[in-house]
Amino acid sequence: MKDNTSMFFLEQKDIPSTWYNILPDLPEPLPEVLHPGTGKPVTPDDLAPLFPMELIMQEFSPERFIEIPEEVQAVYRIWRPTVLHRAFALEKALDTPAKIFYKYEGTSPAGSHKPNTAVAQAYYNKKEGIKRIATETGAGQWGSSLAMGCAFFGIELKVYMVGISYRQKPYRRLMMETWGATCVPSPSPDTKAGRDMLAKDPDCPGSLGLAISEAVEDALSRDDTHYSLGSVLNHVLLHQTVIGLESKKQMEMAGEYPDIIIGCVGGGSNFGGMLIPFVKDKIAGDKPDLRIICVEPTSCPTLTRGPYAYDFGDVAGLTPLLKMYTLGHGFMPPPVHAGGLRYHGMAPIICHLLKLGLIEATAVHQLATFEAGITFARTEGIISAPETNHAIRVTIEEALKCRQSGEAKTILLAHSGHGHFDMAAYESYLSGKLTDYEYPEEKVREALDSLPRF
Amino acid sequence: MKDNTSMFFLEQKDIPSTWYNILPDLPEPLPEVLHPGTGKPVTPDDLAPLFPMELIMQEFSPERFIEIPEEVQAVYRIWRPTVLHRAFALEKALDTPAKIFYKYEGTSPAGSHKPNTAVAQAYYNKKEGIKRIATETGAGQWGSSLAMGCAFFGIELKVYMVGISYRQKPYRRLMMETWGATCVPSPSPDTKAGRDMLAKDPDCPGSLGLAISEAVEDALSRDDTHYSLGSVLNHVLLHQTVIGLESKKQMEMAGEYPDIIIGCVGGGSNFGGMLIPFVKDKIAGDKPDLRIICVEPTSCPTLTRGPYAYDFGDVAGLTPLLKMYTLGHGFMPPPVHAGGLRYHGMAPIICHLLKLGLIEATAVHQLATFEAGITFARTEGIISAPETNHAIRVTIEEALKCRQSGEAKTILLAHSGHGHFDMAAYESYLSGKLTDYEYPEEKVREALDSLPRF
Repeated sequence: MKDNTSMFFLEQKDIPSTWYNILPDLPEPLPEVLHPGTGKPVTPDDLAPLFPMELIMQEFSPERFIEIPEEVQAVYRIWRPTVLHRAFALEKALDTPAKIFYKYEGTSPAGSHKPNTAVAQAYYNKKEGIKRIATETGAGQWGSSLAMGCAFFGIELKVYMVGISYRQKPYRRLMMETWGATCVPSPSPDTKAGRDMLAKDPDCPGSLGLAISEAVEDALSRDDTHYSLGSVLNHVLLHQTVIGLESKKQMEMAGEYPDIIIGCVGGGSNFGGMLIPFVKDKIAGDKPDLRIICVEPTSCPTLTRGPYAYDFGDVAGLTPLLKMYTLGHGFMPPPVHAGGLRYHGMAPIICHLLKLGLIEATAVHQLATFEAGITFARTEGIISAPETNHAIRVTIEEALKCRQSGEAKTILLAHSGHGHFDMAAYESYLSGKLTDYEYPEEKVREALDSLPRF
Repeated sequence: MKDNTSMFFLEQKDIPSTWYNILPDLPEPLPEVLHPGTGKPVTPDDLAPLFPMELIMQEFSPERFIEIPEEVQAVYRIWRPTVLHRAFALEKALDTPAKIFYKYEGTSPAGSHKPNTAVAQAYYNKKEGIKRIATETGAGQWGSSLAMGCAFFGIELKVYMVGISYRQKPYRRLMMETWGATCVPSPSPDTKAGRDMLAKDPDCPGSLGLAISEAVEDALSRDDTHYSLGSVLNHVLLHQTVIGLESKKQMEMAGEYPDIIIGCVGGGSNFGGMLIPFVKDKIAGDKPDLRIICVEPTSCPTLTRGPYAYDFGDVAGLTPLLKMYTLGHGFMPPPVHAGGLRYHGMAPIICHLLKLGLIEATAVHQLATFEAGITFARTEGIISAPETNHAIRVTIEEALKCRQSGEAKTILLAHSGHGHFDMAAYESYLSGKLTDYEYPEEKVREALDSLPRF
């Protein structure tokens, strides 16, 4: 009898008890992080006003495996392990011999992968006696996840939400408030960075980079407050490796190892968490043919069009300098609905792996991603986040190539979450109002001129 | 070491392959269903214009177990088995010795238990060659679930959505459209029942009973169209028994049997699906002390205040007559946010079990349910549907009684789904705008005068 299992459940005792840190396994070390004032490598003490020391140590740790505290594991157990699905219905609709699997993070209470690090960050801050956290959010996935994490550990939270998303997604703000957080649109009058931008452009749609500036400024201005970042940094990707570690065990349960792994990238945390435990095998030489594809929007083509250079993580230039593919920290991406992908930079680990040729990147247009999302919804049921639809698009393209070639490749899709708070975007698409944005070449060139020189 | 398992996963091979039909096990037979015109017992042929014959046969079946077709099981496998959770964080917050478990149906792509029957109904209609279905929906849970079911089986769907919910929950409509269905607010100008009501009251908020009239009229007026009901009827509760059957196995995995089972009731499909496999044990005499508590809103107190009488399922009097607790088919419930509980009647099976003293019922106020929902969200993470918050309220009350008495009772909560499309209701609550509605005694008395006499 054909095995028709389409959901692979790990038992809770098999949740990883350690996160996997790729830093010691990289073939070349990651470029150093530089101090924004001096241009010299940052020290842990430089970061102490923003982060608890345990997270700072994780950022630079030489340890391959880092224990997940029991308090964090206890919270993970509210929704983890998440399920690995086999997409039989999608395969059938595409008439492809490809085997499509997806690891679905949308069953977390916040609806995405973000709580994996939110909970850990709230825990370490609590442990260090921090009473309040400031953060930014793009589409609202991160802000709502941290709101939940802070609710669990009794920490006050203020969220600066990218203005356009704040207006497009009122329900994400309500989620944050349900979990007890405060949320304001960015640019806001609450910080100097926000006020400066509002003076320049009162209708500014905001950007992740700007919202980061506001949250960092807030945290630096108060002794009881730390800052928290939902993507980009090494320790964030570290926490997200639970996704890839669980997926590896679940792919084994399915008797498969992926030929291609596909995920969307904004700051890189979801896909970083998925790909890191797999790219380890490629670095070790065990899986030389493994393809790992990062998918980004053509309107914000960081990996496919940006230079590899030192840049700030935020608009105002308050963060340390990271070596990354970047469109320039002054770049204001077009208002596409995949708010979580509207970021000028990218996780240094992802950039480094791309530079080393261990992973690849591609960019897709907005309309094509929604078309793919509708196909997914009408076959696999799930209405996916616009960010995830980027990865679904390329998954479908690769599956159709298999139909052409007759190859039964195994594809693993990193499905970052549902689109229940993105229905206005689906409305735009279904009513024919959604448009594509070309790569804003001139604006990017202008923004790149702002790159810091060191 | 203390067992800290908080999610109980069944393997897919352990999904029940049959639904459990309680009809042959009832201590007294269910009162007959009467024809709306003649007042005589209905025959299968009377129902054939509305339903496929296999569903009609299930409605009256004397078989204890009814096989789940492989095509339906294949779709179930997209999200089933759903998880049974142990609510450790809620228990800790309540400082109760009670053990609280919840079976969570919110991980279905539509976000509730409704797809369990939607998929089955779409399948049987497809099998009988039906091209189009008309249905009603209250809060939108049912309409979106059937939209998904129809997408999977290639059936056209028209949904009459209770007007107030249509306006309160635009994203539910967009979900239906994403899955390819058409959705209009009820009362609508598309049917006589709708036009009559609009003429009487152009601002009518609508009701489930009225929306049913519209959908039934639509189905009767076209040869290619059937009607589909998301609750109340025996075959609907039958399909939902997957919830209780899975839960029984999962409670066994946890080494427990519930002392109390709690669920919310509107038409009764979610809680019916949960309680039926358990009440079987009580009927058999194996679990005499098992308590099963139905929770309804004080604003629509069908079980706690209505008489047990024959009534129509809809406002216009088009449906067969069912013996049930009822507030009168002309009753227009106040516009509370738990749209799925705004129904004048109740599943005959639930009513019969209540009449026989095998289950009990209680009513709770709206504000108290949201307070409970916030507690649940800040401990267990999940933001629950307003309907589910009714059951959560009583779960918390029972757990607090255990704190008083020191008893470590085992409570099983039937968690019907998430509240991602109900954030406007949370906004009303959080901003202090939400109010309670008293039991509308006069309006009910008036509506009861409309009860048919036979």
